[in-house]
Amino acid sequence: MLNRENIKKQIIEAVRTVKDTNPMAGSITNTVTINFVANAQLAAGGSAAMVYLPDEGEFLALAGGATYINVGTLFPIYEETLPLTAKTLFDNQKPWVLDPVAIGIGSLRTKLLLNFKEYKPSVIRGNASEIIALAGLWSLEGGSGESKVRGVDSTDGVLKAKIAAAALAKWTGGAVAVSGETDLVTDGKILAYSHGGSHFMEKITGSGCSLGGVIAVYLTATSPFIAALTGTSVYNLAGKRAAEKTKAPGSFQVHFLDELYKATGEDIAENPFEIEEV
Amino acid sequence: MLNRENIKKQIIEAVRTVKDTNPMAGSITNTVTINFVANAQLAAGGSAAMVYLPDEGEFLALAGGATYINVGTLFPIYEETLPLTAKTLFDNQKPWVLDPVAIGIGSLRTKLLLNFKEYKPSVIRGNASEIIALAGLWSLEGGSGESKVRGVDSTDGVLKAKIAAAALAKWTGGAVAVSGETDLVTDGKILAYSHGGSHFMEKITGSGCSLGGVIAVYLTATSPFIAALTGTSVYNLAGKRAAEKTKAPGSFQVHFLDELYKATGEDIAENPFEIEEV
Amino acid sequence: MLNRENIKKQIIEAVRTVKDTNPMAGSITNTVTINFVANAQLAAGGSAAMVYLPDEGEFLALAGGATYINVGTLFPIYEETLPLTAKTLFDNQKPWVLDPVAIGIGSLRTKLLLNFKEYKPSVIRGNASEIIALAGLWSLEGGSGESKVRGVDSTDGVLKAKIAAAALAKWTGGAVAVSGETDLVTDGKILAYSHGGSHFMEKITGSGCSLGGVIAVYLTATSPFIAALTGTSVYNLAGKRAAEKTKAPGSFQVHFLDELYKATGEDIAENPFEIEEV
Repeated sequence: MLNRENIKKQIIEAVRTVKDTNPMAGSITNTVTINFVANAQLAAGGSAAMVYLPDEGEFLALAGGATYINVGTLFPIYEETLPLTAKTLFDNQKPWVLDPVAIGIGSLRTKLLLNFKEYKPSVIRGNASEIIALAGLWSLEGGSGESKVRGVDSTDGVLKAKIAAAALAKWTGGAVAVSGETDLVTDGKILAYSHGGSHFMEKITGSGCSLGGVIAVYLTATSPFIAALTGTSVYNLAGKRAAEKTKAPGSFQVHFLDELYKATGEDIAENPFEIEEV
Repeated sequence: MLNRENIKKQIIEAVRTVKDTNPMAGSITNTVTINFVANAQLAAGGSAAMVYLPDEGEFLALAGGATYINVGTLFPIYEETLPLTAKTLFDNQKPWVLDPVAIGIGSLRTKLLLNFKEYKPSVIRGNASEIIALAGLWSLEGGSGESKVRGVDSTDGVLKAKIAAAALAKWTGGAVAVSGETDLVTDGKILAYSHGGSHFMEKITGSGCSLGGVIAVYLTATSPFIAALTGTSVYNLAGKRAAEKTKAPGSFQVHFLDELYKATGEDIAENPFEIEEV
Repeated sequence: MLNRENIKKQIIEAVRTVKDTNPMAGSITNTVTINFVANAQLAAGGSAAMVYLPDEGEFLALAGGATYINVGTLFPIYEETLPLTAKTLFDNQKPWVLDPVAIGIGSLRTKLLLNFKEYKPSVIRGNASEIIALAGLWSLEGGSGESKVRGVDSTDGVLKAKIAAAALAKWTGGAVAVSGETDLVTDGKILAYSHGGSHFMEKITGSGCSLGGVIAVYLTATSPFIAALTGTSVYNLAGKRAAEKTKAPGSFQVHFLDELYKATGEDIAENPFEIEEV
């Protein structure tokens, strides 16, 4: 069983490995925040590559240490690209992060997200509404058929997604990260609550998407639960530090990337969190 | 008839409503400036969501308080997505903003823009050349078949688009915003000239696109004319304030987003403008 | 034969022409860094326009002073758009820049890059691995069939690409720019080594892509070799100056764009470089 000291040690090791090895984590992600995802992955110490076509998704799945799939702005070709990429990842036991952005909007998104159930993403990251809706779509405990997703924003509190998050993690055998005022990370056995951040993270587009990309970077170096908690912790830390330097969103994003780059493994491990059993 | 005091009061109310209710304005927009559009909408107090597929455009049209359509970087699927989305907006009396970027380039763009005539966008935003070309394409007064559009830049002065802008607004029953050194906003009955901004707004990509997205945010809360004038005014104000803080484009964009966020309804209403009858 | 003074004079003239005439250089480029490409082109004094569709690529090829083609994130439609655009450029003797990003990933990329051989890009810009791989794909001296490209990053030193770069330049009759710690620019007859920059340029996504776009801007005003060297020099200068102002990537990118804008022709010509015969 993981305890706090054990977790901190693993966070420090994961961050060191990433900074030392500059691991590549490929992405298939939305066009709105694709630049921020790449820059955040680079700031954290990783390397980024983004594609759209089926055989390119397959290539990146095999070439990268981990992959990030975000269903934000779907293109028609994704009907081929995403199932092939997810299958390649699963068949080759390559870790991957799923961000079920805007679940409930459009038929292709629903079809793709349903299809991902069998390919068991190592980490699922979303806001509370998205996590509840995904558990619902996959017929797991804590899910709800009634989508409370409003475009890409959440209307549910993080705690309301606790059962759904645990159920998803149990199904995949990986971890789930729920973003909110306090963030929740679980592997289905233990839950971590991570604190920090800033309300300005909702005033810039892509805090969530780029966190998914950064978790994929850590996933090249550690377990799903530690990767999800390390990413969540560094986001809370960098968000808090950036908000101490400015009170407006344009400069907040600049400071945020700076702080993401500057944060050491020790800093990240010391960012406040609590754990409890599920 | 609108007078200055009346207009200022409505601007203040629109800004307050947006900041209080965080309304969602979905977009189908180009990939060059999509991130800036979203961040500008968030800075103004709104919420953003972007899509490409037909049924997703239809969904956002119905779910959002207003929608922004920018034809900047067309994908093949837009042949289905844009007419369906515009028709859904029109049939459901949902307000929307059209940005006819780069009108004249390519056959699909021309076909789509021609088709939009019957779906009457609530606000049309463009530079002088684009407004004149659109009036020409729609066979309205003040239009010209000769395109003076050079890629995405304008070669005509704002005043030259006065007749075309008024004719477009009369046709749609909405408003038209013409961006230039002095900006012009009209509902076909009155014209407002809005002052401010900075030459640095032409040194960053997406000032125009993001203004279209911000007008869509205000359009969730007020009339087309007031929405167009509020957006234009806050852009002039934030541009002027940002240019007082820096003399280079990278930092200008950061300050611009900060000032867009900080501007109050009263600040925006006090940004210099004059009105006259058409 | 070019000498240092001659080269400096031509750099100063190219920069002046661009700043005076605001030339348009259209692009077909990846979605990850498309915004940075456009903003860098604007900061350098040019004008930007980006498209995806075949007839739009053809339009921009004819309308712009030069064109930038970057194969970073391919869409299915590129199978039509890129060959048509490259053919239009070649047939009309319009200069263009090719960035063979991520060469080796996926079948469409290979097919398109092979096809570009006959359309002889005026400038080819890439990292050492990409340049070696392209020479290999085109069966030229110095090339290698074994790709050492890792996603979008290079694992080869610039000097290892010297023969491949010269061979490519001889084939096209244009120039090749190889990005690395020291940058190499050649027209197949002389080689220039350009110094400066910062390790932070690898910590932000799109340094290479945006350099390609900026070279296209200079290519509207001067020869391929001078355009490639001017772009490379201003990047080294702006990167060095930006790194003197900050030690983190978010603010580095902001300062970089500022310095790109501020650099004069004289500044750029004075950025350290050496020349040698091939």
